[in-house]
Amino acid sequence: MTKPLIETAPNVSEGRRRQIVDRLVEAAGRAPGCRLLDVSSDASHNRTVLTLAGDAQGVAGALLAIYEVATAAIDIRRHEGVHPRVGAVDVVPLIPLAHASMSDCVSLARTLGRTVADRFGVPVFLYENAATRAERRALENIRRGQLAGLARRIDQPDWRPDFGPPAPHPTAGVSIIGARSTLIAFNVILETDDLTVAREVARTVRASGGGLPHVKAIAVRLGDGRVQVAMNLTNYLETPLPRAFDAVQRGAARRGVGVAGSELVGLMPADALDAAVANHLLLDDYGPHRLLETHLYGPRSTAGC
Amino acid sequence: MTKPLIETAPNVSEGRRRQIVDRLVEAAGRAPGCRLLDVSSDASHNRTVLTLAGDAQGVAGALLAIYEVATAAIDIRRHEGVHPRVGAVDVVPLIPLAHASMSDCVSLARTLGRTVADRFGVPVFLYENAATRAERRALENIRRGQLAGLARRIDQPDWRPDFGPPAPHPTAGVSIIGARSTLIAFNVILETDDLTVAREVARTVRASGGGLPHVKAIAVRLGDGRVQVAMNLTNYLETPLPRAFDAVQRGAARRGVGVAGSELVGLMPADALDAAVANHLLLDDYGPHRLLETHLYGPRSTAGC
Repeated sequence: MTKPLIETAPNVSEGRRRQIVDRLVEAAGRAPGCRLLDVSSDASHNRTVLTLAGDAQGVAGALLAIYEVATAAIDIRRHEGVHPRVGAVDVVPLIPLAHASMSDCVSLARTLGRTVADRFGVPVFLYENAATRAERRALENIRRGQLAGLARRIDQPDWRPDFGPPAPHPTAGVSIIGARSTLIAFNVILETDDLTVAREVARTVRASGGGLPHVKAIAVRLGDGRVQVAMNLTNYLETPLPRAFDAVQRGAARRGVGVAGSELVGLMPADALDAAVANHLLLDDYGPHRLLETHLYGPRSTAGC
Repeated sequence: MTKPLIETAPNVSEGRRRQIVDRLVEAAGRAPGCRLLDVSSDASHNRTVLTLAGDAQGVAGALLAIYEVATAAIDIRRHEGVHPRVGAVDVVPLIPLAHASMSDCVSLARTLGRTVADRFGVPVFLYENAATRAERRALENIRRGQLAGLARRIDQPDWRPDFGPPAPHPTAGVSIIGARSTLIAFNVILETDDLTVAREVARTVRASGGGLPHVKAIAVRLGDGRVQVAMNLTNYLETPLPRAFDAVQRGAARRGVGVAGSELVGLMPADALDAAVANHLLLDDYGPHRLLETHLYGPRSTAGC
């Protein structure tokens, strides 16, 4: 029997001190039963996203090793960066891949959350499919007001953490762990240094502002002064990459601003390409079965069951 | 040592009589050392493209089995269809995949050409990388004037076939065999029944008319009356699918005509998706290394060496 394969992409609030990032990578890479697939580190965001996959036990081991390094090395009170965050290990999504179900990931989120709280004294909130209350499903609700905002409400009955003490850890802050489907983190960089333009474009693009379904968007200023619209595409089959890109490009163009380029954070699933191409080309009969390699080597879908 | 993997996509001039297509499929599927990957049959074109891959010996065996069925069953004098053609087995490209080189395919084209001429009495022209004269490199040069045109010049010194008699086979016509890189056959269907529009658009899009590099395009009328721009993208990394699609869409729009959809003929290589997406999104650092599956299961490139 094949073990369920689970992906995780811990977002750690450190993207500047190379030596800390190296230690995170080393710790994650050493864990048995889990493979480190990618490291995306960004100095402006001051944030590193590691992508790992393995069985539940392997993923838990690698994540605890990351918590150990991050809680010892990062002081969130001194963290400067343009990305919203509430803790040293800010967000840990667990994502079902082959042979894994969402409920495998929800179970793992709970086990991991309890262990993190017990071992490191860091309060843990569960989000999305692992959330214990409706208002905690959306990551941005938990992170509203960043650490200071969360600290003000964490001892209220509705906002007590799922695990751990009702106060942020002095240096490691709070950690948010959850189970969700694969998403694509995708940033479009604008040819301007005017953050207002990026904010206006983000507002028109995001689902919550009546923009594109399944798109979250914020405005972020990069280290070189340029600004970007940083997006999460939470359903890339319904709203493919090019549609999100085009919406940002149109929004920027209406304000007389061009697009300088785009970037993926972490990895994307291959079927997002299918969706992107089929959508753009108005191809009805498109899918992995139209790829030469599928017939030579078999499909390479990672879809969970 | 791994045997060189060669792809072939014989274009057979039969896309209407189901029973003949079935026999072609059966013959191709029976050959050892070769796998039938795809069958694309089109009634308007009256043409079937089979996609196969295997080692040189396996591919040759499958192709000879296809020639045997096609030359017995198809009378090219009675062939009606909207696609240019000169023979029962009209065109046979040989394409290097993993561990195969272009010269492996050139050698196979020559061996196969000689055998086809000897065994079936069908004159064979070699094209593209297997061509023996510069003016025979381009398929459309050999096929100019279709079978009637070729029949008029086949006994001239410059136009004698590479193998076989200097006259078309009475029923099977002529066959064109060659070695080339992977291409994508991609058709865009217009929302009009006016063939003139498709012809004008094809003319503006094709490389030889000053349009897009590495694009061949013709206008074709479908069975339901609609028209399409049928393209070959001979370098999909330089001119990705969406750029070709957009050019047709723009050309049609300028004439007040919309695009109804598009279709792939046969299979496309996975890296064409990378090229398509990276190009559209202005992603600099895009490639298979940004795909989750590449890190889980390894790259699935079929590029020859």
